[in-house]
Amino acid sequence: MNMYEIISKKRDKKKLTSEEIEYFVSGYTTKGTIPDYQMSALLMAIFLNGLDAEEIFDLTLTMMRSGKVMDLSFIPGTKVDKHSTGGVGDKVSLILAPLVAACGVTVPMISGRGLGHTGGTLDKLESIPGFKTNLSLKKFIGNLSAIGVSVIGQTAEIAPADKKIYALRDVTGTVNSIPLISASILSKKLAEGADALVFDVKLGNGAFMQKEDEAILLAKNLIQTAKRFKKKAVALITDMNEPLGEAVGNSIEVIEAIQALKGRGPEDLRKVTLALGSYMLILGRKAKNFKEAREKLEESIKSGKALHKFKQMVKKQGGDPRVVDDYRLLPWAKHKITIESGQTGYVKSINTLKIGLSAVKLGAGRERLDSKIDPGVGFLIKKKVGDQVEKGENLAVIFCNDLKKGELAKQEVQEAYQINKRRTNRLKKILYLIDGKGIKKGDS
Amino acid sequence: MNMYEIISKKRDKKKLTSEEIEYFVSGYTTKGTIPDYQMSALLMAIFLNGLDAEEIFDLTLTMMRSGKVMDLSFIPGTKVDKHSTGGVGDKVSLILAPLVAACGVTVPMISGRGLGHTGGTLDKLESIPGFKTNLSLKKFIGNLSAIGVSVIGQTAEIAPADKKIYALRDVTGTVNSIPLISASILSKKLAEGADALVFDVKLGNGAFMQKEDEAILLAKNLIQTAKRFKKKAVALITDMNEPLGEAVGNSIEVIEAIQALKGRGPEDLRKVTLALGSYMLILGRKAKNFKEAREKLEESIKSGKALHKFKQMVKKQGGDPRVVDDYRLLPWAKHKITIESGQTGYVKSINTLKIGLSAVKLGAGRERLDSKIDPGVGFLIKKKVGDQVEKGENLAVIFCNDLKKGELAKQEVQEAYQINKRRTNRLKKILYLIDGKGIKKGDS
Repeated sequence: MNMYEIISKKRDKKKLTSEEIEYFVSGYTTKGTIPDYQMSALLMAIFLNGLDAEEIFDLTLTMMRSGKVMDLSFIPGTKVDKHSTGGVGDKVSLILAPLVAACGVTVPMISGRGLGHTGGTLDKLESIPGFKTNLSLKKFIGNLSAIGVSVIGQTAEIAPADKKIYALRDVTGTVNSIPLISASILSKKLAEGADALVFDVKLGNGAFMQKEDEAILLAKNLIQTAKRFKKKAVALITDMNEPLGEAVGNSIEVIEAIQALKGRGPEDLRKVTLALGSYMLILGRKAKNFKEAREKLEESIKSGKALHKFKQMVKKQGGDPRVVDDYRLLPWAKHKITIESGQTGYVKSINTLKIGLSAVKLGAGRERLDSKIDPGVGFLIKKKVGDQVEKGENLAVIFCNDLKKGELAKQEVQEAYQINKRRTNRLKKILYLIDGKGIKKGDS
Repeated sequence: MNMYEIISKKRDKKKLTSEEIEYFVSGYTTKGTIPDYQMSALLMAIFLNGLDAEEIFDLTLTMMRSGKVMDLSFIPGTKVDKHSTGGVGDKVSLILAPLVAACGVTVPMISGRGLGHTGGTLDKLESIPGFKTNLSLKKFIGNLSAIGVSVIGQTAEIAPADKKIYALRDVTGTVNSIPLISASILSKKLAEGADALVFDVKLGNGAFMQKEDEAILLAKNLIQTAKRFKKKAVALITDMNEPLGEAVGNSIEVIEAIQALKGRGPEDLRKVTLALGSYMLILGRKAKNFKEAREKLEESIKSGKALHKFKQMVKKQGGDPRVVDDYRLLPWAKHKITIESGQTGYVKSINTLKIGLSAVKLGAGRERLDSKIDPGVGFLIKKKVGDQVEKGENLAVIFCNDLKKGELAKQEVQEAYQINKRRTNRLKKILYLIDGKGIKKGDS
């Protein structure tokens, strides 16, 4: 077996064996016998000619085994995690992890940082003073055992092969390959020891997947591969044609998440959170059906149990739990700029990619790998698609520390809005539900 | 402009501009700003998504301009070269260069070494004691001016970009791409200063092109691209489903070439040589049509002018011209092993790739880059496709210096023969003639 033959096989649309996949993953990552230039030629051949279900399984398995695979079986019950493919204003994990844990399901969550125009759960949580996301795996497991929830970042011990391969994909135009994305997501998620996974595949002008068929294909790939690992899995395809909720940033999204845990969040955020949470309770065997699951989740918010779990989680990870009652403890920007609508009508569309990129430029994300995030800056998106708006009415608010950057963001956010005379419907949020049995249209 | 965008464009089947092609060729080769792993991802994208005629032209131009481009305009008349895509027993260049030069056409020829299972003109010529193929470009031009013919190897000054890119293609499974092959061949051929080119695209089980449509496509690409450079060009598609002539090796092929120059070569070799030579005379304006061209070539052999030109060439390049009259001056193997047919019948087919690889193992080619060629070893292929053969009759002869290797070759050559009871036709040698106007079936 040699790399040349493996490249040639995939180039000629042939199927790779388990041994060949193990050979190139270990050769490129742990052994270091395969050079970058051969690996990138193979990645491009995979990008263009694809991988079938077995090959995705083998690739996921090999990348997962390149690092530590956690065993959480000593913790009773089904452990369930959620993964989102990323969007703008997607603070769902911050709400969902404590909310679901408060209902009795253990939630081991390994999250990511902001990528491109999208925000990252870790960056958001770190705006809470003292909050640490770089816990050791031992501490992570300890927290899960003690309070049923912990959210940390990918450590060097988790799927290091994925990390090395991802870095190469990033510079060779081979990121946006559904088989490679599937294996990359799952190799990390499976290593964290969850028994069941709920995927939130974002679709729309602010998502990585902008075509419906690609989003569905990714969802199916994720579910099928998870099933081969004997993990229960379902996926929702949810809308990302406007920011989720109103807040875009870090501190500002933490506040919106806490508001949601208090039962006061925006309606679209609530819808997506409850839909994903219901699936998590069902897979975690804490509810028999959607009706029961939804009642439990709502009760957990109403009673304050979910908020209490959030406080516990913040405290366990070194953060100041008083932020829950005093938002002034969070970093906040000095200046506020409001954006007024130049016309009367209805919001027809919002260029969400543009909003996300604008937030990054403002300091809410990283423009370069070594950029530092400014946790206090961000946007409040007051008007969403379908909303009626009067001339001079407030469309959005910008919070900034640098007025020049703020003025640029103002211009960009304004340009992202398309306002029309014609009435437009609000966007449906839950587009599809996909499980092992098939695909259903969402109803809200 | 950056390499990431260029890779992504070709990955998405978009056309690259002249500037983008110039950017990645110079970035990868002369400037060294583009790493191997990005170039190999691009090469795989080109392999799978192709290049159109303009892109091939731009790539050829940029690779050609990476080195010296010779100007032979001070030499009167049209300068014509021939290029073969390589085969087994293909000693045509050794005959053709002096033969065509003897008819008054200047032949500037930059040749190659053995590649894979195929032999190389340079390796063959170097079996003549003293013969040098690494002449300086100045000496090359001097010889052309003095005697109208010179055959040298690619120097570091000729299309260095092609050399660097080829080395990467060789280890990343991206050699067999028609657009890349076209640009690679032409960037070198155009640099040598010829005004017209005749291509011999080999097709069959001993050629790099094994499918008719691919051979035709390559021929058309070569002609179209040459035309964009204002060069006249034609192509023959010739058979490579058996070795050309009888001799396979180095000294042994030199002898067969000299025999051909004396008018005594095997019929198939004569056919291919005269067909290619006729085109060269027509493009070189030394004949008006095929009839006249063929008469001139035959006359040049008959009169001894062609042989004399060969002697001049050998002498000018430091070789011993007495080899023409005394073959014992050439290196020769110690042992001779004959292969007898195990059955009576007709030769149905010869696995020519196997014959070529066997010759390489015997020492006629290089198994590794640093292997040394044994010029004295080789085969005589006595029975060709369609020949009648009696049980015990001689199929082939092996000349070797190592009896163990010789016995292995005997077995391999024997296995390459398929002999049947049923009568089989001899192979047609000239399969297609392709010029700017169209494609015609060959007639012999």
